[in-house]
Amino acid sequence: MGNIFARRPGSDPNAAAVVTGSHLDTQPTGGKFDGVYGVLAGLEVIRTLNDHGIETEAPVEVVVWTNEEGARFAPDMMGSGTHQGSLDLQTMLDCKGIDGSTVEENLQSIGYAGSEPVGEFRANCFFELHVEQGPILEEEQITIGAVTGVQGISWTEYKISGVSNHAGTTPMRLRHDAGYVAAALAIEARTIARQLGGDQVATVGVTELTPNLVNVIAKEALATVDLRNTDDAILKQAEARMAAFVDATAKAEGVDVESRTLARFAPVDFDPSMIALVEKTAGDLGHTVRRMASGAGHDAQMFARNCPTAMIFVPSRAGISHNVDEFTEPEDIRAGADVLLQVMLASAG
Amino acid sequence: MGNIFARRPGSDPNAAAVVTGSHLDTQPTGGKFDGVYGVLAGLEVIRTLNDHGIETEAPVEVVVWTNEEGARFAPDMMGSGTHQGSLDLQTMLDCKGIDGSTVEENLQSIGYAGSEPVGEFRANCFFELHVEQGPILEEEQITIGAVTGVQGISWTEYKISGVSNHAGTTPMRLRHDAGYVAAALAIEARTIARQLGGDQVATVGVTELTPNLVNVIAKEALATVDLRNTDDAILKQAEARMAAFVDATAKAEGVDVESRTLARFAPVDFDPSMIALVEKTAGDLGHTVRRMASGAGHDAQMFARNCPTAMIFVPSRAGISHNVDEFTEPEDIRAGADVLLQVMLASAG
Repeated sequence: MGNIFARRPGSDPNAAAVVTGSHLDTQPTGGKFDGVYGVLAGLEVIRTLNDHGIETEAPVEVVVWTNEEGARFAPDMMGSGTHQGSLDLQTMLDCKGIDGSTVEENLQSIGYAGSEPVGEFRANCFFELHVEQGPILEEEQITIGAVTGVQGISWTEYKISGVSNHAGTTPMRLRHDAGYVAAALAIEARTIARQLGGDQVATVGVTELTPNLVNVIAKEALATVDLRNTDDAILKQAEARMAAFVDATAKAEGVDVESRTLARFAPVDFDPSMIALVEKTAGDLGHTVRRMASGAGHDAQMFARNCPTAMIFVPSRAGISHNVDEFTEPEDIRAGADVLLQVMLASAG
Repeated sequence: MGNIFARRPGSDPNAAAVVTGSHLDTQPTGGKFDGVYGVLAGLEVIRTLNDHGIETEAPVEVVVWTNEEGARFAPDMMGSGTHQGSLDLQTMLDCKGIDGSTVEENLQSIGYAGSEPVGEFRANCFFELHVEQGPILEEEQITIGAVTGVQGISWTEYKISGVSNHAGTTPMRLRHDAGYVAAALAIEARTIARQLGGDQVATVGVTELTPNLVNVIAKEALATVDLRNTDDAILKQAEARMAAFVDATAKAEGVDVESRTLARFAPVDFDPSMIALVEKTAGDLGHTVRRMASGAGHDAQMFARNCPTAMIFVPSRAGISHNVDEFTEPEDIRAGADVLLQVMLASAG
């Protein structure tokens, strides 16, 4: 799969490795912190152990996972997902990119179709250090996020079909306005997030009207709803409320709605003792720390079902990511790497 | 201006003409009734007078007005507006079309830059027969609409600027979602129309989000609001409510809004005695009839300030217009022409 492994042996030849890693690929307009930070910090952990002549019982391993972003080849988290058995190797090798060539062809052409069997080892535990890609740590002036898990994601596309008509000559009571229903579901998404509270988020990022003219009632509307929660039961509540609202509103307006699931991932919970280790270590090093869920997907979530897993977040300036303006202060970069070093040391013995 | 006049003389050489007319141009995807019907019915009135050897006191005149639709050259109602003094002749001749050529160049090239001074005559009165272009007559199974006036029109464009951010990692409380504000104003438009009642209509026909991606909070949103009412005081109330709502919602969401007036026309009231004449004539001929406002603009509104004016509507199947599916039943076409004949005869003596 083109994943890259760097192992520093431990003193116990039978011990499973304490693993860290992230990815080097980015979004087309991405910055230089998302992914890369976790890889370089892992190398810095190994260098630090070398510099200080420290021997660990378990091996320490740094991994670069192929294609975390899914920008050229879908799905995302391809390398870690295949390694940890969530994705099928041959299916992934056969994936065609946006230019029509396959993953396998590209791995061969760049010399990264390695000889090692994919998913050969099981980790003792897995840590991933990453920039938050959100505004919470900066807003609360906290240095370290002890990530408790990854939010479940539910993406639904609604295609609403009404009747196009003249905005002046059509009385309100005779309208079948696809645009009105699209607007109503955007407001409902906000209401659902507010009423469910906690870390429930809801976003209507896409709205397109047809014919999209000032004086014409929209015949068709396309809208997407992105719902996320760390608690799958609450996420299902949010989905059910949205589906019921869309049905009732479409019926009242006399329009048809087709809905399509674009993505659905259950939430991932990280290991409680690993989360506690990150939290305690950050505090012991004198950093402010809070527990938080990840709103974005990460390679670490592929490990969570197979071994104790946790993530460490550091602040992203203005919460900006997937953007060349992505930035994290050098002192926060160091703080995160220090926490990574200490939790790996503690885990590797 | 390329307007075409056909005059049938009356017996009184000093009498002003009883005029009817409409337009022959259409929208690019228009049907064959909008405009054309009123012109052909006017010719049929003259033919009928000729066939029966009827002499009127006042002349009877049929006019084809240039560029009612404004599809190639803006503004619309150009020929009637120039003739009746609402639009300036040279400004209209200099108007550039979507292909860059001017009205004057095109009138010359097709031989319609006539020698007659524009707006030479003032009518005794003006009637326009037109398809409704809306669903009311069909829905109420009424054959003739006695049009009381043309709704005032208010078009506003709102450009909303928020902050683009990750739909997963950005908590609800930290959002500045331009798309949410666009959706909220679409819902408010509906609420305003419902609460003001009567013939108030409100339409959000345009909504565009940027970047328009499932998992990205919209940075920008463009939305238009089309408000119409026959009562200018109520229309102003609707405008004020919408403006206040947008201000308050933008402030609460932490987004900026620029608004721009795209169009603003005061309502036009037709002449009470002319409306009554249409209504009585339709009833006398055995047709069902109701008074109604026009939601769309028409050449007749250009006459309303200069002479007694009225319009006659016939049903549009499913309210469809500006569409090749535009259709009116032959018996309704005949009923409308019969009413036009009788009101012109009554007016011309």
